[in-house]
Amino acid sequence: MNYGEIITEVFNAVEVENCGGQVSSYIPELAGVNPKHFGVYLTTTDHFEFGIGSCYQKFSIQSVAKVLSLTLAFKMLGEKIWERLGVEPSGTPFNSLVQLETDGGIPRNPFINAGALVICDILVSQLKNPNLDFLQFIRETSDNPTLNYSETMAASEKSVGYRNIALCNFIKSFGNIKNHPGEVLDFYFRLCSIEMTCEELSKTFLYLANGGHRISDNRQVLNASQTKRVNAIMQTCGFYDESGEFTFKVGLPGKSGIGGGIIAIHPGKYSIAVWSPGLNKKGNSCKGIKFLELLTTKTKSSIF
Amino acid sequence: MNYGEIITEVFNAVEVENCGGQVSSYIPELAGVNPKHFGVYLTTTDHFEFGIGSCYQKFSIQSVAKVLSLTLAFKMLGEKIWERLGVEPSGTPFNSLVQLETDGGIPRNPFINAGALVICDILVSQLKNPNLDFLQFIRETSDNPTLNYSETMAASEKSVGYRNIALCNFIKSFGNIKNHPGEVLDFYFRLCSIEMTCEELSKTFLYLANGGHRISDNRQVLNASQTKRVNAIMQTCGFYDESGEFTFKVGLPGKSGIGGGIIAIHPGKYSIAVWSPGLNKKGNSCKGIKFLELLTTKTKSSIF
Amino acid sequence: MNYGEIITEVFNAVEVENCGGQVSSYIPELAGVNPKHFGVYLTTTDHFEFGIGSCYQKFSIQSVAKVLSLTLAFKMLGEKIWERLGVEPSGTPFNSLVQLETDGGIPRNPFINAGALVICDILVSQLKNPNLDFLQFIRETSDNPTLNYSETMAASEKSVGYRNIALCNFIKSFGNIKNHPGEVLDFYFRLCSIEMTCEELSKTFLYLANGGHRISDNRQVLNASQTKRVNAIMQTCGFYDESGEFTFKVGLPGKSGIGGGIIAIHPGKYSIAVWSPGLNKKGNSCKGIKFLELLTTKTKSSIF
Amino acid sequence: MNYGEIITEVFNAVEVENCGGQVSSYIPELAGVNPKHFGVYLTTTDHFEFGIGSCYQKFSIQSVAKVLSLTLAFKMLGEKIWERLGVEPSGTPFNSLVQLETDGGIPRNPFINAGALVICDILVSQLKNPNLDFLQFIRETSDNPTLNYSETMAASEKSVGYRNIALCNFIKSFGNIKNHPGEVLDFYFRLCSIEMTCEELSKTFLYLANGGHRISDNRQVLNASQTKRVNAIMQTCGFYDESGEFTFKVGLPGKSGIGGGIIAIHPGKYSIAVWSPGLNKKGNSCKGIKFLELLTTKTKSSIF
Repeated sequence: MNYGEIITEVFNAVEVENCGGQVSSYIPELAGVNPKHFGVYLTTTDHFEFGIGSCYQKFSIQSVAKVLSLTLAFKMLGEKIWERLGVEPSGTPFNSLVQLETDGGIPRNPFINAGALVICDILVSQLKNPNLDFLQFIRETSDNPTLNYSETMAASEKSVGYRNIALCNFIKSFGNIKNHPGEVLDFYFRLCSIEMTCEELSKTFLYLANGGHRISDNRQVLNASQTKRVNAIMQTCGFYDESGEFTFKVGLPGKSGIGGGIIAIHPGKYSIAVWSPGLNKKGNSCKGIKFLELLTTKTKSSIF
Repeated sequence: MNYGEIITEVFNAVEVENCGGQVSSYIPELAGVNPKHFGVYLTTTDHFEFGIGSCYQKFSIQSVAKVLSLTLAFKMLGEKIWERLGVEPSGTPFNSLVQLETDGGIPRNPFINAGALVICDILVSQLKNPNLDFLQFIRETSDNPTLNYSETMAASEKSVGYRNIALCNFIKSFGNIKNHPGEVLDFYFRLCSIEMTCEELSKTFLYLANGGHRISDNRQVLNASQTKRVNAIMQTCGFYDESGEFTFKVGLPGKSGIGGGIIAIHPGKYSIAVWSPGLNKKGNSCKGIKFLELLTTKTKSSIF
Repeated sequence: MNYGEIITEVFNAVEVENCGGQVSSYIPELAGVNPKHFGVYLTTTDHFEFGIGSCYQKFSIQSVAKVLSLTLAFKMLGEKIWERLGVEPSGTPFNSLVQLETDGGIPRNPFINAGALVICDILVSQLKNPNLDFLQFIRETSDNPTLNYSETMAASEKSVGYRNIALCNFIKSFGNIKNHPGEVLDFYFRLCSIEMTCEELSKTFLYLANGGHRISDNRQVLNASQTKRVNAIMQTCGFYDESGEFTFKVGLPGKSGIGGGIIAIHPGKYSIAVWSPGLNKKGNSCKGIKFLELLTTKTKSSIF
Repeated sequence: MNYGEIITEVFNAVEVENCGGQVSSYIPELAGVNPKHFGVYLTTTDHFEFGIGSCYQKFSIQSVAKVLSLTLAFKMLGEKIWERLGVEPSGTPFNSLVQLETDGGIPRNPFINAGALVICDILVSQLKNPNLDFLQFIRETSDNPTLNYSETMAASEKSVGYRNIALCNFIKSFGNIKNHPGEVLDFYFRLCSIEMTCEELSKTFLYLANGGHRISDNRQVLNASQTKRVNAIMQTCGFYDESGEFTFKVGLPGKSGIGGGIIAIHPGKYSIAVWSPGLNKKGNSCKGIKFLELLTTKTKSSIF
């Protein structure tokens, strides 16, 4: 089987489809992105790579970065982090406050905004200089010293981030945010502002397909058990209240961002990044999901 | 790697643990089951089998049977069934009515009681003689003509089944049950009353590890895509509001029943049945989950 | 002030208004009612009476009857009934199941369907022959031996009463229905089928404006404290999730039914019945509420 | 009937009762209040006054002040304010965020925190200098130029006000807060910090018993219809999710604060202030409610 050919074929089929998605209008800075971008990049654990379309164009990875913050917190504190959040799919939209009230301020999982804020709080407590140290971590993980935040994007998100401010203060009211909400939010907005190309995204996340090890020099990012567990959480919680649908259609652990990016992992085999800014009603990239559904069908490479 | 040795080792370790689980007291007939039973049976796609403990003792498979009713409905109607229910984890207990009110009578997935009732309604509409025809289907799937309902158990469950009666009438009030609720419930209570041994359970479900084909003669139960999708739904929804936790700890698609049985599937490799009647607070077998967690850790056979 | 003149003036003003209400289509037997009916009847504690429009036409009083079942249960058991239900407005529609799940099967108040079912269960336990004994009670209260159930209406409601069947079985699953759900539901459907004219409705409920005493011979139906409490519950809970709005606009305790009837009480002064079958989105009579709002404004007879 | 004698009798009876209430520990500054304080002050529309116990001691009126902010917003903008919030009891605790999510940022009523924040936002928009102008308004209404905020209390509440910050930003995310959340919150915290004695509280609120007019010189604060409507909202929403219970037991419109103060109004007759810092689980003064229940029973002065 030739991944390049199949990717090209599926890419061409999906590119002309009208999925009816909308570019996120929530963050001013995101609203201006050209909806026609469509890029894909695959990297395998046996050193094959293939890219197509806008795959060398930077975009805002947004919530995809929450896998990286989870990775660092998990690496630093181990299973202890689960005292402060769960691993259950929430069955609700990404920014819902409802369950927090029932659950006493314990977010259901690290990929809804509430859970990502608790992970940010953990990192703010653990890191000497959260912004710099976290950047250092993703540069090392990806073996790419050029990765960076977009200060413009972070500022843009902060300017309209009322829902996240509400979430962070709400969790604080239950005592499950330890630092000042403003400090946690600043780190959170920066986290979400990270920019990558599909190529960079695919390569950064390859450790999750490679038993927790960086491909370049086999350096361990996470141990085997932790790697499996991060993949497992992506499987059940990576797409908010569309996680079941993604698992059903695509059959790979993955994570989406409202910038239109998606990362998907085939444990042991490959990491694939897709980017198309048009979002469906659940806030996930329409063409991204469609592409991955066709790809795993054609390649029979769903994990199920 | 020798599955038999590892299973024995893990079985012995878990058998002596005190997980603190309680036998379900909800259904009178279940309440009398000896909590000490503990059995495991593994069947691989390459014809290896291994059993230990109470693995030849019949027990009530309860909600594990919902995978079989889903299989038959999916086989008969294909993707059309998803017009009447979803594939999303619910984030709520198995018998919750809350989301139905918000979602207009469309159950989140086929494994919560609400969704299983809609699947039963579909089968009542599709089958000439639901009870007999469905029994015929599971006997064929398992290649085991002795499988049967327990009329005593069905009657016992019906006698206290107020929550399920409520669910079925509630969905009917939204128009998403087409037949008379009483008829649907009678079929549902019988479905849940099916009895199997661990050996039978493991062998019956092997088609899900075998690309949808019965192992004995390669006869197709589901096609490849449908098989992957049933596994995917088990992964995200198989353990009610503990589905994320099971995925996180065990890393295999699976389904539990309040009789204490669990089936787990390693696609391409094996099907394993575990039975221990003591349940945790979420209604899933304590020792069953513990056993599978240790097993996939030891064998590194999680799918992630 | 002359009540007759003011009622006539307000009646004429409201009669020509197009409130846009819809006759309930939920119960087949109700759906056929002529939407043009509009009747009003006032009875004062000092023996003045005045009727206008369709005030001598029988209609199905539906949930207005829940005040009568509450009255009898309260009369028989006193404050003890509040062990099984509350007196809080629910903030949700009349037939919602959601709060029951949170509140462990304890309905918020006796006027939502859930609470009315618990009251029915209490009466089924207390009365030798629930249907006959309750009929006897309302005939005595109203001093009108011709009042009766409509068997046709009760049967019609039962034929589509899935939501109420769900509610009753759901409460039973929490143990807060003591009798067989079918028996309780039969009594409930009969209760809702009572037919009265505006004149009869107004006279039947006059005890609530008269310190708990029947006006004809001063016989006590409820004591003074119980009477005040029933009025208080009507004030906060009489119009489902429009109770606050009714209190705000009309300023009298009252109770509505989906047949389009409303009873309102001015403690110490009068009881007024209004009937117009067109319902607003909350299930309450549009013209009925409009009429009462204008009436209490004109007469300055809100209790606030 | 002699109000003074009855008040004294009931006061003495309730003073020795152990209601088991707890002083609010939520705001540091409130936590230090002596739980033994118990004061009552009654003012009638025909110029009778009577006080007992700690009735000349200042306390933090907290949420009781929300009636005053509603009064001013209602006076300035009339019925237009109801475009931004409702008049329905919420059926949930005072600081719940859940319904806002369902209701798209429209608070159920002006007395839950969410609604009070929207009223504050309206006043911040309408008043040139919110803090000063509002203070001026309550001084005029009460004819008492010494009334003031407690800056210490406002600062104390702000220091732990995460839930209110969450609420305000959450509503802002729906667009129903027009000003900067920080500005609205500052005004809100000051509003809640107003201090009065029972005597001052009773006299300040007498306009609601007096058809909207100040008693001293008959100056209009609200018109007759507005006054009735404010009383109506107090009746259905004044005690959070205990509003039905208060209406049931006391039968007067009223409003509580977590400082332990309660104001209750008998339209046309009197205004009564009670203060006792021990709160029940719903956040309302235990002895305050008990006192009012006995008082309206003894005096038969419930409005029902």
